[in-house]
Amino acid sequence: MDKINLMKTDTVMLDDENSAVVIIDQTKLPGKVQLLSLTTAQQIWDAIYLLQVRGAPAIGVAAAMGIYILAKGMPQEDYDSFYQAFAEQKEYLDSARPTAVNLSWALRRMEECVLSHREKSVPQIVEALRKEAIAIRDEDVAVCKKIGEYGVTLLKQGDGVLTHCNAGKLATVQFGTATAPIYVAEEKGYHLRVFCDETRPLLQGARLTAFELQESGVDTTLICDNMSAMVMKKGWVDTVFVGCDRVAANGDTANKIGTSVVAAVAKQYGVPMYICAPTSTIDMNIATGDDIVIEERKPDEVAEMWYQERMAPKDVKIFNPAFDVTDHSLIAGIITEYGIARAPYEQSLKEIFDKKKGGK
Amino acid sequence: MDKINLMKTDTVMLDDENSAVVIIDQTKLPGKVQLLSLTTAQQIWDAIYLLQVRGAPAIGVAAAMGIYILAKGMPQEDYDSFYQAFAEQKEYLDSARPTAVNLSWALRRMEECVLSHREKSVPQIVEALRKEAIAIRDEDVAVCKKIGEYGVTLLKQGDGVLTHCNAGKLATVQFGTATAPIYVAEEKGYHLRVFCDETRPLLQGARLTAFELQESGVDTTLICDNMSAMVMKKGWVDTVFVGCDRVAANGDTANKIGTSVVAAVAKQYGVPMYICAPTSTIDMNIATGDDIVIEERKPDEVAEMWYQERMAPKDVKIFNPAFDVTDHSLIAGIITEYGIARAPYEQSLKEIFDKKKGGK
Repeated sequence: MDKINLMKTDTVMLDDENSAVVIIDQTKLPGKVQLLSLTTAQQIWDAIYLLQVRGAPAIGVAAAMGIYILAKGMPQEDYDSFYQAFAEQKEYLDSARPTAVNLSWALRRMEECVLSHREKSVPQIVEALRKEAIAIRDEDVAVCKKIGEYGVTLLKQGDGVLTHCNAGKLATVQFGTATAPIYVAEEKGYHLRVFCDETRPLLQGARLTAFELQESGVDTTLICDNMSAMVMKKGWVDTVFVGCDRVAANGDTANKIGTSVVAAVAKQYGVPMYICAPTSTIDMNIATGDDIVIEERKPDEVAEMWYQERMAPKDVKIFNPAFDVTDHSLIAGIITEYGIARAPYEQSLKEIFDKKKGGK
Repeated sequence: MDKINLMKTDTVMLDDENSAVVIIDQTKLPGKVQLLSLTTAQQIWDAIYLLQVRGAPAIGVAAAMGIYILAKGMPQEDYDSFYQAFAEQKEYLDSARPTAVNLSWALRRMEECVLSHREKSVPQIVEALRKEAIAIRDEDVAVCKKIGEYGVTLLKQGDGVLTHCNAGKLATVQFGTATAPIYVAEEKGYHLRVFCDETRPLLQGARLTAFELQESGVDTTLICDNMSAMVMKKGWVDTVFVGCDRVAANGDTANKIGTSVVAAVAKQYGVPMYICAPTSTIDMNIATGDDIVIEERKPDEVAEMWYQERMAPKDVKIFNPAFDVTDHSLIAGIITEYGIARAPYEQSLKEIFDKKKGGK
């Protein structure tokens, strides 16, 4: 079971008997590729809490599939007993990562599915929950696929691509966001050469992106975050794709720390940088990046994490912001599932949302 | 002996009895501050080979002081026996790091001292060697001090400074090059706030620069290499100082990998970046940075070094250049011991060398 073809395996899936949520244990990567079968509430909660499954979309899908699996074991006789058990488990799972938007969003959607089917029998409700979980999964896959299809129009045979952090399939179900254009290009036989920033301090690029790209047969080269200028100066990079945590209405983009370093370097060397952004991450209520609050994490991640011994002087001050905001002026385009927005973003992003409202 | 005041301790020195070379063991930093007394040829060779002393100027001074210590134990009766023993030890020490220019340069200078005093008694020659070793040390200190004095004119009270890698006192005897303006500013009570890039993959910034600045009482903050844009965007950095490995006649500068990333980011945020360059590192025979060959080091430094376990997929390609070249257009000035050169560098660097030839 351990040797899997990542190109053909979802990050989160139901097993053949619909009796377990199967995930790739991301805490073991890249040393060990291990699938985990989650069948109990405790296991599902732990998997989310311990980051065995991570990435907002992947967490949402895991929670949706998880509560469906649990629903099968809840009282099936009457609606009220069923709903009470469902509500309890929903609350429990929701507590695994309180700040993960997709987690509560997916669980709320599953609850709405229960509520809207209350006139049906419990087994029918459970079947509706299965369909809803699959729908959440399918929508994620479709959004990523669309981003890949729009993104691939920016690439040509043999191009060099640089990416930062992991906005890959490990953070979603398939394709990823920043990696979607890469995977779609590979399907077309483009033979890209992809550079992954290792992404200090948590090393998502080294541990996750380099891993998933290599497993998928992509020509992958790992670099330290401070080598991007060197590879761009050599002319090895034609395009930069990164994901995002939040995009403001003017196109300013919060993403993993270091993204705005890549942006400045890309500008210096004339390489276009694109943000891969499902519309769910674009917040038209935020005018500019100045309004995005940046999480600061503990110093030990920089000084001690992963190491055999502490690699910084005792008690030295350490600044460890988890994200930074890239100014819209450094962004060549924002790739959404409804097309590519270009500057001025106030207008182009509004048009993207008009398209979304219009059902494409 | 272990609790030392780094602000008042040379990186390399003779002990009070002139019987040992005393160094700060840099392989133990930042966890442990340990002075090593080197008295035998083997100990001196090991200290250089094992990087217990590192940084081109510091290595040169250690070798010069080392061969002086050894000369005291060589046959003192006749010149020929003495010189034969000297030549053997010189060759031995020179083999510790074959590519370190300052090592062979300093040893050759010590040998010339022996040759030019051949008419003297051996004890007189040994005394001349002591003076020569001290002269090499004093010249290094004076060059760094001068760079500091020119550099400090670019700073003002309370400024924020960012530096990359270690071009600090640990690489020289006192002051360092990139750190010299910082130390001189501290002496003047400027109360700077200094940001150190950790400098992947070898972490010289985290292990050495953050250490020596903090020990010296400087307000020091360690950041990952990918956080420079964030701190500059916040307006926390007024000036960037970095060292260099080689400067071309047009001002293009080879320095530790990542320097050109800092340069692009500094340009984006309007922060001036200065190269601190003893004239010994400026090579007027090299027209541009294109002619500087960049050493590529082994992948394991990125994937495995310092870590408890490998942090990259097995067999993934890794690009690990040790240096990069920063284009002269990104450099606000080159600070030498003869003044600050500004663009166009072909002319200003030539003027620096004219000044040097003229004896100031």
